[in-house]
Amino acid sequence: METISDRILMGPGPSNPYPEAVAALTRPMLGHLDPEFLDVLDVTCDRLRAVFRTENPLTVPISGTGSAGMEAAFVNVVQPGDVVVVGVNGLFGERMCDVAERCGAEVVRVDAEWGQPLDPDAVLSAHPSPKVMAVVHAETSTGVRNDVAPLGAGKGDALLLVDCVTSLGGIPVEVDGWGVDIAYAGTQKCLGVAPGLAPLTFNQRARERQIERPHSWYLDLGMIAGYASTAGARKYHHTAPVSMIFSLHSGLGALLDEGLEAVWERHSACGRRLHEGLRKLDLDLLVEEQHRLPELTTVVVPDDVDDAAVRGRLLAEYGIEIGGGVGPLAGRVWRIGCMGHTARIRNVVLLLSALAEVLGR
Amino acid sequence: METISDRILMGPGPSNPYPEAVAALTRPMLGHLDPEFLDVLDVTCDRLRAVFRTENPLTVPISGTGSAGMEAAFVNVVQPGDVVVVGVNGLFGERMCDVAERCGAEVVRVDAEWGQPLDPDAVLSAHPSPKVMAVVHAETSTGVRNDVAPLGAGKGDALLLVDCVTSLGGIPVEVDGWGVDIAYAGTQKCLGVAPGLAPLTFNQRARERQIERPHSWYLDLGMIAGYASTAGARKYHHTAPVSMIFSLHSGLGALLDEGLEAVWERHSACGRRLHEGLRKLDLDLLVEEQHRLPELTTVVVPDDVDDAAVRGRLLAEYGIEIGGGVGPLAGRVWRIGCMGHTARIRNVVLLLSALAEVLGR
Repeated sequence: METISDRILMGPGPSNPYPEAVAALTRPMLGHLDPEFLDVLDVTCDRLRAVFRTENPLTVPISGTGSAGMEAAFVNVVQPGDVVVVGVNGLFGERMCDVAERCGAEVVRVDAEWGQPLDPDAVLSAHPSPKVMAVVHAETSTGVRNDVAPLGAGKGDALLLVDCVTSLGGIPVEVDGWGVDIAYAGTQKCLGVAPGLAPLTFNQRARERQIERPHSWYLDLGMIAGYASTAGARKYHHTAPVSMIFSLHSGLGALLDEGLEAVWERHSACGRRLHEGLRKLDLDLLVEEQHRLPELTTVVVPDDVDDAAVRGRLLAEYGIEIGGGVGPLAGRVWRIGCMGHTARIRNVVLLLSALAEVLGR
Repeated sequence: METISDRILMGPGPSNPYPEAVAALTRPMLGHLDPEFLDVLDVTCDRLRAVFRTENPLTVPISGTGSAGMEAAFVNVVQPGDVVVVGVNGLFGERMCDVAERCGAEVVRVDAEWGQPLDPDAVLSAHPSPKVMAVVHAETSTGVRNDVAPLGAGKGDALLLVDCVTSLGGIPVEVDGWGVDIAYAGTQKCLGVAPGLAPLTFNQRARERQIERPHSWYLDLGMIAGYASTAGARKYHHTAPVSMIFSLHSGLGALLDEGLEAVWERHSACGRRLHEGLRKLDLDLLVEEQHRLPELTTVVVPDDVDDAAVRGRLLAEYGIEIGGGVGPLAGRVWRIGCMGHTARIRNVVLLLSALAEVLGR
């Protein structure tokens, strides 16, 4: 008989999904053109608008994981030669550069040290007239929150493109309020749903600059909108990932029943408790308090401690997953996620106790 | 309380998933780097090799639906100016042209009428030295099976790229035996798993001609292989759709426990029974017997019958979904699928009875 483990997922994602999201995965399959499924899809898009805080009609779950959302965001607006300013202070900013370059963009990087926030003025003044200005709201690789509102206020003629993979449903995201033109997320972080879908939203400004025939057929938003949009007749594009959409529909339902602000506060309370507890264990946090995410915390691995051994013992002895560092932070930090259904005080208390035992503190 | 319907899915897909595949969707979430998940992924890839009948080390589930598999197949080998011969006798051959053109290919079309098979000699002689020769094995839009083996035998220096979305797990597919270099499928047809993943296999010949940095970051097979391949250290690319992979793992397990040949025979028996029953109802089948798929049958809508009304009554009164025609066949045919867990004689018997009642025959 195969082993089936039941982890407490406190790494950089996936998080533990909401029970409602898990139960919905087994809802009986429907065809992707079944009126009952299309109702579920429409409600799912409405719920995504609620969590993105947007009125954008083009708000859909892309049929891939968060990185497919990133690619869809770029490939639909960036053509060869376009100038794209990218704020880079972590792995996902780096990934944005790679994706934009593959679209043929002239990428203008604005770097900040991993663990430090971006300087919005540096992003705004990096180029006189970029087509796109792109930043990661919550850097999963570092635990840093980058300020988005100043970029929306100063973006001028550029499109503001924001990665909300680790922020959506965990901390305030205000797509319309901040002047964000394009945003995407993933389901497996603070939304508390399995990985596999990428919520994406494009405002009217972004739609007006959409490329008519992007390199990607699969991520062609014009065609996706023709299927997912409720306005006009549905036109088949690709078969929707029906079970995952059932799950997102129900996970978002649970989240909105609790209340978006209440969910933000729950993530915030878990983060505060976690940060206090880690300091009591004499552990240093990489990111300064004012830029620190509640849902993803980077802890400096003490000099005399074996990074991987601690993670291994947490997994083997307590069934708790935490993440290691990546890039320049590999071996230097642990990444502790507290997102979605994982964001419960009981999980924080357990992790702190387990960590104290493993570290002998 | 929301309505939750339980359909018998006899359209062009999705089919009803195997109970084992459904149950596995709720297996407790694991991280995408958890050793227990990586074991499941490795076994899933082994099982895919078994159903593809290949030894190709690079055999993976792509994190998107079947069309993402198509895009991954083209985007990793086709560069601007490359000649790609595409056999077109249905919607998915058309889609291949679109995808190849977006890669910058010079597409050489070889057309056959919708409902007729491709002429292998015409495909082989369409261009003296194409880089890629691409065909759809089982055309979901028409119910036609195109012969693949003669193309493998005569392909010369070209890469043979085959769409197995509606054939894999339903009728014989012999990737290695037929000399197929690149093949992809979808989970939601004869594999009897929810839509959301695209099994893909590349042989050594195809890997040697892989583009180093394709337009798509998300579908970059070099990077995907670095994560999914068991050879060497795993390198994070994107977060795997964990629950869907659990489901594919279990669905393939059920299929292989039954036995691949037994599953082919079950699909074949359902097809024979369906075709006989339809003829007894005095209905004409679009495709000649020797090219007709057992798993996807196109039925000519009689002149005096309202296409959509019949489909609507089957859905509303019997909970059975069948599909309408697309493209030049819109309004002219019904598409009846009998794939995966749907491929049971009891479903065929029920459909035939329901159709007889609705048609008053």
